[in-house]
Amino acid sequence: MNRECKVSLTVIRRLPKYYRYLGELLNKGINRISSQELSKLTGFTASQIRQDLNNFGGFGQQGYGYNVEELHRQVGKILGLDRDYNTVIAGSGNLGQAVANYKGFEDAGFKVLSLFDKNPKLIGLKIREVEIRDVDLMEQFIRDNDVEIGIITTPKENAQDIADIFIKSERIKGIWNFAPADLKVPEHIVVENVHLNESLFTLSYFLKNCDIYNS
Amino acid sequence: MNRECKVSLTVIRRLPKYYRYLGELLNKGINRISSQELSKLTGFTASQIRQDLNNFGGFGQQGYGYNVEELHRQVGKILGLDRDYNTVIAGSGNLGQAVANYKGFEDAGFKVLSLFDKNPKLIGLKIREVEIRDVDLMEQFIRDNDVEIGIITTPKENAQDIADIFIKSERIKGIWNFAPADLKVPEHIVVENVHLNESLFTLSYFLKNCDIYNS
Repeated sequence: MNRECKVSLTVIRRLPKYYRYLGELLNKGINRISSQELSKLTGFTASQIRQDLNNFGGFGQQGYGYNVEELHRQVGKILGLDRDYNTVIAGSGNLGQAVANYKGFEDAGFKVLSLFDKNPKLIGLKIREVEIRDVDLMEQFIRDNDVEIGIITTPKENAQDIADIFIKSERIKGIWNFAPADLKVPEHIVVENVHLNESLFTLSYFLKNCDIYNS
Repeated sequence: MNRECKVSLTVIRRLPKYYRYLGELLNKGINRISSQELSKLTGFTASQIRQDLNNFGGFGQQGYGYNVEELHRQVGKILGLDRDYNTVIAGSGNLGQAVANYKGFEDAGFKVLSLFDKNPKLIGLKIREVEIRDVDLMEQFIRDNDVEIGIITTPKENAQDIADIFIKSERIKGIWNFAPADLKVPEHIVVENVHLNESLFTLSYFLKNCDIYNS
């Protein structure tokens, strides 16, 4: 396992936050930031930030701080955002359409080439120039277009079937899964789950159990 | 700070997973499960599960394991799912509509009373019997209906304005935020963020950096 792959998930999950904050600084025309300022902005200690980045190389300079544009670019590169990814979405209800419509993903390089569904009322429709195709055509489409990322926005009972098609295609390398199901995939395919139920129930936990929210 | 409020976030975030697995067991008609079986199902050690649950009381019995229905009910109660929550959604594009349509949230007790938007083309439409109203009417609606949870599915530039309305209403206790923005709220309001960008960029990190996904 190569070095970057051994970095802890906790560190990895901070990187997109750094990327977001640095992007916002760039949008404001700020091109230099001290460790303290970056710490104040992100909520992480200057030491934590430095340690995190040290997993990937030396960034910033003593006494200078960080060059925002350079660091933004470097973190983007580490996150794999310096290239495009062909992507398909399986499940073309509201959630699938929401993901297809989200311009931020497209700007970051994730190009949705097609949506798929089994509902004849949806097949043939277009979401911002992207067609909804019959899911029976998905495996071939993935092969023909070298699609590397599959997004699952189906109900949970269909999620594994979709994952199985992704596996059979021998092209999909990563799955972004919104269905509340544990997918069984071979170890060479990465799965990132978005557990919306779990997020909402965490919120209700705090409302229920913490007096500070109930005074 | 009361005891349940001091439980670590890592433990809290495992509770909805237990709830999901126990619900699936119930659906299959399985009403008794040993520590080992539950460990195998969840991926957490029997000891971890026991420790997690011990934060909230004694569950299960030596030699018997757990009564699935009882444990599901208890964990649901701890998660605050034993009551309903009046909810509104601000931002009625695809994502807001997806959240409004998600039957799983309604079943769990989160009742969406209204969506809101500023787009005249959306105002007046209905999503499964739930109306999209003018956001100018949101503050009063929240007061009139004792709405406790506000969901933000607007673009990031509007998120703080929506949060400010939630704060002014003096009714909202929890915010479920999908916008990639850090909300400034008083400490008596809990915010749970869903950072979709960060999730997707974690996936691309693995695709970029881990050879196992690129062989």
